[in-house]
Amino acid sequence: MNIKENIKTLIIKKPLKLDCGQIIDDYPLAYETYGSLNEKKDNAILVCHALTGDQFVTGLNPITQKEGWWSYAVGPNKSIDTNKFFVICANVLGGCMGSYGPNTIDKISKKPLGINFPVITINDMVNAQYNLLDFFGIEELFCVIGGSMGGMQVLQFVSNFPNKTKTAIPIACTASHSAQNIAFNELGRQAIMADNNWQEGGYDENKNSPNKGLSVARMAAHITYLSKKGLQDKFGRKLQERDDLKFSFDADFQIESYLRYQGSIFVDRFDANSYLYITRAMDYFDLTKQFNGNLSEAFKENKAKFLIISFSSDWLYPTVENRDIVIALNAIGADVGFVEINSDKGHDSFLLNVPDFLNTLKNFLNNSYNK
Amino acid sequence: MNIKENIKTLIIKKPLKLDCGQIIDDYPLAYETYGSLNEKKDNAILVCHALTGDQFVTGLNPITQKEGWWSYAVGPNKSIDTNKFFVICANVLGGCMGSYGPNTIDKISKKPLGINFPVITINDMVNAQYNLLDFFGIEELFCVIGGSMGGMQVLQFVSNFPNKTKTAIPIACTASHSAQNIAFNELGRQAIMADNNWQEGGYDENKNSPNKGLSVARMAAHITYLSKKGLQDKFGRKLQERDDLKFSFDADFQIESYLRYQGSIFVDRFDANSYLYITRAMDYFDLTKQFNGNLSEAFKENKAKFLIISFSSDWLYPTVENRDIVIALNAIGADVGFVEINSDKGHDSFLLNVPDFLNTLKNFLNNSYNK
Repeated sequence: MNIKENIKTLIIKKPLKLDCGQIIDDYPLAYETYGSLNEKKDNAILVCHALTGDQFVTGLNPITQKEGWWSYAVGPNKSIDTNKFFVICANVLGGCMGSYGPNTIDKISKKPLGINFPVITINDMVNAQYNLLDFFGIEELFCVIGGSMGGMQVLQFVSNFPNKTKTAIPIACTASHSAQNIAFNELGRQAIMADNNWQEGGYDENKNSPNKGLSVARMAAHITYLSKKGLQDKFGRKLQERDDLKFSFDADFQIESYLRYQGSIFVDRFDANSYLYITRAMDYFDLTKQFNGNLSEAFKENKAKFLIISFSSDWLYPTVENRDIVIALNAIGADVGFVEINSDKGHDSFLLNVPDFLNTLKNFLNNSYNK
Repeated sequence: MNIKENIKTLIIKKPLKLDCGQIIDDYPLAYETYGSLNEKKDNAILVCHALTGDQFVTGLNPITQKEGWWSYAVGPNKSIDTNKFFVICANVLGGCMGSYGPNTIDKISKKPLGINFPVITINDMVNAQYNLLDFFGIEELFCVIGGSMGGMQVLQFVSNFPNKTKTAIPIACTASHSAQNIAFNELGRQAIMADNNWQEGGYDENKNSPNKGLSVARMAAHITYLSKKGLQDKFGRKLQERDDLKFSFDADFQIESYLRYQGSIFVDRFDANSYLYITRAMDYFDLTKQFNGNLSEAFKENKAKFLIISFSSDWLYPTVENRDIVIALNAIGADVGFVEINSDKGHDSFLLNVPDFLNTLKNFLNNSYNK
């Protein structure tokens, strides 16, 4: 284990054959843990992060100096109670927070790998993360959980490792990335690639990154994370620090300045090439196709207790797509619960203070653990 | 009247005070007509085009050499029957097809106006178009009609000129641009402005236009024009001329190559600065606010017969927003009909071959004209 500043890194020495055919070996996987692994080692929860998340789930993120992305859900006495559970989260393969990704320095050229990094998949991410179980000597996780792309990893995990978790909670996700999902991701990629600074992925992170393009990509994604009603209630047509329209291209409306802000702060913490690779992995995700059109087959060896959670106003991964997972599980008599949480906050609901959601999580985990 | 190549242009010599305060005079308005104005001059239909439309409603567009944007609806024996009706359409103020806009050559500098063009509004567009009625000697239109931004112009037209049309058909539009609408438009503008070639609007159209940015803007907009289900049915996860994933950033999926294509052909026919100005006009549109929060007031002087049309899968200007217009009209006892057309084709439905829609249009127009 190699600790670089604030990032814990496991160097994985076991070869991994990626879906693209390339074999990687001796690569870093950055991770973080919260709480303590008990003696029986039966209280571990693997949290899988979404597109722009990282291993710093809760508390202060030492790199961004901001709250961890799931601080509402994870921590002492919270839904995922770190007084009780041992939470593990790894930065995904392809990420930019210490795991093997396009910003990893190539040993020979001494430059970031850039687009020489292989195209990875959700399957590759999950297979890399699995090494953490061995590292901590965990025979069986208590739970594997994640929202959005994190949910896709949950589905892939239970499919790849059927007897390695007692429970599984995929949240606000899909078993197969839809055309509209692909479209929005492609839009983001094209925005990045349209930036002259991208330089076919060969930009120097410390000099001229494709920040304008990455910022536009983030803006596009951000719109999809919020519901139409949520946007209207929060912003509507409210003006930004002015009494009337300015008849210019400045940010007249609060929604404009909000989006610009979201774009601008994102580029400080995220790498444009990582954005390309991770969105690509999401687009490639089609668990149904992995099992020749029969999603049930993905879970047939599984004994895990499932809880599927969707949000009523999530139009990116709508309830109907989450329900497809429930249907596939029911078709093989799996132990599966399903909740659609009422929320106006869109796809982002899983990251926010949505009491019904947080209570559902807490109760499911506590009741399942005590049984 | 000045005819430049294939574009009919009316030079308007009557000063127009824009909403921004600037007065314009001696400016061009490009227009096209179809069919013949009858002796009574009671068969004229003013068609208002959407964001990226132009005056070439039907038949061959002489500039793009492609079919006009509303060829399904307008033509001999079609819904808007040019054997019977005289159809007029003007390129909007701010457009790039001959009307006064950012690509108009400045008389002094001999360069395009670029961002020295004033920020215009839907109200300004409508006021400029009104001059066409005088030009043709039309006392009262038979109908004013348009979809999307065209529908906004319809609403503004009947509000500004209460006794100048017998019927009005706003299609798939809104009386007040929503936060989500503004968000998507702002995304498009930021994509254009992020392009180094934009040069603060001072690019040379013949050399280095901000085509990459404009293309990304078009891609973003295009996603919003289609429904999630429509995209899934048409593209799903179908691959582009290959049997399996290529593990690269090429367009693996048909939806990717479709979007790239839509972006690439758009830049040949549209001006990036026009895109900025017209989206701005849409975002500024809030007829409800113009009447201090009471939309009914906008129509109270009106005797016109209204038909409001929405599409079930349109999430950009959903039925609920179209229904708000119906409610405002009903509240003052106006003559109003309302139809929600069932269609999976999203916002784009009004441009496509949607028989229920086309039949509704045809019947409404024919029955209203014969009365």
